[in-house]
Amino acid sequence: MKAAIVGGGVIGGGWAARFLLHGWDVVVSDPNPRVETQVAEILLNAEKCLPALADVPMPARGTLSFEPSLAVAVADVDWIQESVPEDLSIKHSVIAEIQANAPAQAILGSSTSGFKPSQLQDGAPRPGQILVAHPFNPVYLLPLAEVVAGPDCIDEVRDRACDSLRSIGMEPLIVRHEIDAHIADRFLEAVWREALWLIKDDIATTEEIDNAIRYGFGLRWGQMGLFETYRLAGGEEGMAHFIRQFGPCLAWPWTKLMDVPELDEELVQKIASQSEAQSGAYSIRELEAIRDRNLVGILRSLKERDWGAGRVLNQNDKRLAERVSVAAQDDGAAVPIRLLESTVLPAWIDYNGHMTEFRYAQVFSDSCEALLRRVGLHDDYVAAGHSYYTAETHNQFYDEVAANKPYYTSVQILLADAKRLHVFYRMHAADDDRLLATLEAMYLHVSIQSGKVVAAEAAATTRLMALADEHVALAKPETAGRFVGQR
Amino acid sequence: MKAAIVGGGVIGGGWAARFLLHGWDVVVSDPNPRVETQVAEILLNAEKCLPALADVPMPARGTLSFEPSLAVAVADVDWIQESVPEDLSIKHSVIAEIQANAPAQAILGSSTSGFKPSQLQDGAPRPGQILVAHPFNPVYLLPLAEVVAGPDCIDEVRDRACDSLRSIGMEPLIVRHEIDAHIADRFLEAVWREALWLIKDDIATTEEIDNAIRYGFGLRWGQMGLFETYRLAGGEEGMAHFIRQFGPCLAWPWTKLMDVPELDEELVQKIASQSEAQSGAYSIRELEAIRDRNLVGILRSLKERDWGAGRVLNQNDKRLAERVSVAAQDDGAAVPIRLLESTVLPAWIDYNGHMTEFRYAQVFSDSCEALLRRVGLHDDYVAAGHSYYTAETHNQFYDEVAANKPYYTSVQILLADAKRLHVFYRMHAADDDRLLATLEAMYLHVSIQSGKVVAAEAAATTRLMALADEHVALAKPETAGRFVGQR
Repeated sequence: MKAAIVGGGVIGGGWAARFLLHGWDVVVSDPNPRVETQVAEILLNAEKCLPALADVPMPARGTLSFEPSLAVAVADVDWIQESVPEDLSIKHSVIAEIQANAPAQAILGSSTSGFKPSQLQDGAPRPGQILVAHPFNPVYLLPLAEVVAGPDCIDEVRDRACDSLRSIGMEPLIVRHEIDAHIADRFLEAVWREALWLIKDDIATTEEIDNAIRYGFGLRWGQMGLFETYRLAGGEEGMAHFIRQFGPCLAWPWTKLMDVPELDEELVQKIASQSEAQSGAYSIRELEAIRDRNLVGILRSLKERDWGAGRVLNQNDKRLAERVSVAAQDDGAAVPIRLLESTVLPAWIDYNGHMTEFRYAQVFSDSCEALLRRVGLHDDYVAAGHSYYTAETHNQFYDEVAANKPYYTSVQILLADAKRLHVFYRMHAADDDRLLATLEAMYLHVSIQSGKVVAAEAAATTRLMALADEHVALAKPETAGRFVGQR
Repeated sequence: MKAAIVGGGVIGGGWAARFLLHGWDVVVSDPNPRVETQVAEILLNAEKCLPALADVPMPARGTLSFEPSLAVAVADVDWIQESVPEDLSIKHSVIAEIQANAPAQAILGSSTSGFKPSQLQDGAPRPGQILVAHPFNPVYLLPLAEVVAGPDCIDEVRDRACDSLRSIGMEPLIVRHEIDAHIADRFLEAVWREALWLIKDDIATTEEIDNAIRYGFGLRWGQMGLFETYRLAGGEEGMAHFIRQFGPCLAWPWTKLMDVPELDEELVQKIASQSEAQSGAYSIRELEAIRDRNLVGILRSLKERDWGAGRVLNQNDKRLAERVSVAAQDDGAAVPIRLLESTVLPAWIDYNGHMTEFRYAQVFSDSCEALLRRVGLHDDYVAAGHSYYTAETHNQFYDEVAANKPYYTSVQILLADAKRLHVFYRMHAADDDRLLATLEAMYLHVSIQSGKVVAAEAAATTRLMALADEHVALAKPETAGRFVGQR
């Protein structure tokens, strides 16, 4: 799949990074001479962060190219994302040139934050190909894409667009009725107006306003939105009760939103200097890095809780896992069996820059699953009521390994009978074959319902026992049977 | 220190929990016959979550009592927090009764979200004692308290109030000029009005609006607010440039905020039924637990990054550490040391509904960090170039544990010398004390730069060795020294 990114600023660059890291080829078209530098900087940010959100290997990265000619850039792509300035006449002329040169079945998404799709579709040769796909900065981390088809976009195009957005880890929010500024930006606009008044009237500084948000309701909104939060405030008396209470407040003179503050140079300078006092100690690059690390932390914590944007990430992992296949490999000679071949994920790294201890346990746990699949004990075996439970393990740690380094694991079977499976795993760095860690493990064959150890049926363990017979020929691992602290 | 909580609903109960868990005695005064149940439920939520944010021991919990007579309740307290309904005449009569009976030097904080302090101070016998201390739900987790002194509150009272709020882990945001609804609620009000229009006009449902928030800008606002976020959107061209660009949009017809939607019964029911479709699968208690777990995750991730609300938590840890003598807790009988008290996170669960094998390793790894912090080996020890690396571990798995179940871990020190630390951890289910798993571990003291084992300086390991000496008195764990497959 290939995407053309038209306009390579903060938003276009973010789209480019998200597509690339999900395996799409990307061509960026922007006459700005600095576009290659800009996109490179954004991509550098993105590759530090986006892979840290995945718990399965990401697909191989696509290729990135730059093509100043819009006509050439869009000639052979599946998706065109327009992120040019918010000026309708510019958008119209760019859309006209795109449609004169792009495949008819490609999707033409616009990043517009304000225009309705009907305004973009108006006068276009193929309006059915055009929709709004409005992302949020940083595009490579935030999953939301507001999808607005408007009156003229073809349903099949919209559905295909949603599938493509999911395939790059985004969550399409279909806005069913087009409206200026879609949904989210209407809220941002409302808050922005109110904030301008508070600054103009010297009620609060930019920093005080930011603290009022991020120490309070901003934390709530990162995981539940407005209504689920208020549902809780209503408690057992219910949402309707809560809203009725809220009613009279609406008429209170709490807001100056009826007026538009005049954004004169004095107010502009006031905001700029307060912002400088608040954030000026950091460069923009530093602030971006801080923001991205924060977002990765928040998103990962939501992912562990399988909630909100974290659930979107878990669903993306499932899709990624289906796309990346486990390498096939011959059995035969009595050698330890290769199980996993993968890379150390960025999120596995601790503050020392090395793989965190418990992630080794994760690698060996994944190795166990790979071993069981290999000998024919698939999920249906578990579904039918039997499984191997881990009774005990002994882990030895030999060497450090850094993010993104390739590794492989192997297993040697020490014993397999009807009730027991005793194995020895090794984890190696793939580039220099260093031994990183070993795990000796004893698994017991159990009935899931009773939780008791039971004998496996012979058919189930045929291949396992055959491998165990072969592995008798292998030297016993030097540290098998070792206890902690043994001299 | 003792606080009187006047009004024991969601907000008053949240205050009670926050004061109690930070060591204050608390008396709750509320004529509602259900008040004891309500506060108990909130306290149950709070004690699952608030201690999970601390990395140092919390102070011993204060005592909780209930006193229907307001006059009696406030007679001997340092802080009175008023959280009665938002009705000025009710507030005035409650304030009058409080001031007739409370110590003159006590602080009288009001949780009002809408009234200005001057409105509360008006006609009061001692206006200088009254200020607004406006918290955010859940009060026991969100650090923000808007402090508005208004024209009549004494500066010394305001400053003392801020110190007290910090002592219970909150971040006072001083609102320098009183204004209806202070700061944060003005934004919430603006968003709420816009949301009502979107629902009334069938543009979006409550769930779509929540997703538009929590998959996008809500994640940003959990860590940076509005202005720091926009500073990044402006990039190197600067804040003033960015705002000037924004200017014309203010005049665009993007908002219906000029009108107040009529909140008639039809709209109330529409919101209530959409909210039911969105969140009705969970009870209020379940949603509260989910929210609290999410907030703990977000706050902990920000704490690791020492940013925003996470920095507030780190500062609170420092204050707690000064107040609570860790050494004092270690004194006394030789028993295994309690390390973690937390719950099994939903993402730790495998297809069998049980905690995944490698998450046990994670729990024990976290336990190791807690142990090192406890003996004074903090991040600065690592920053200075030394650390303990794991050499080998032996894990035994005894029992299953399901999602959201509380657990605790303990550690017994088997040996500590200049180079080695040999320990035995146990993980128990907290509700029935079942042993879930054990980990025997050998750590080696290393120089991070060379990666080599080196002797620790005596000062660094004094407390560790003292604990090891105490633990000699404990029985050796039955399975310590066991190897895999041992009969």
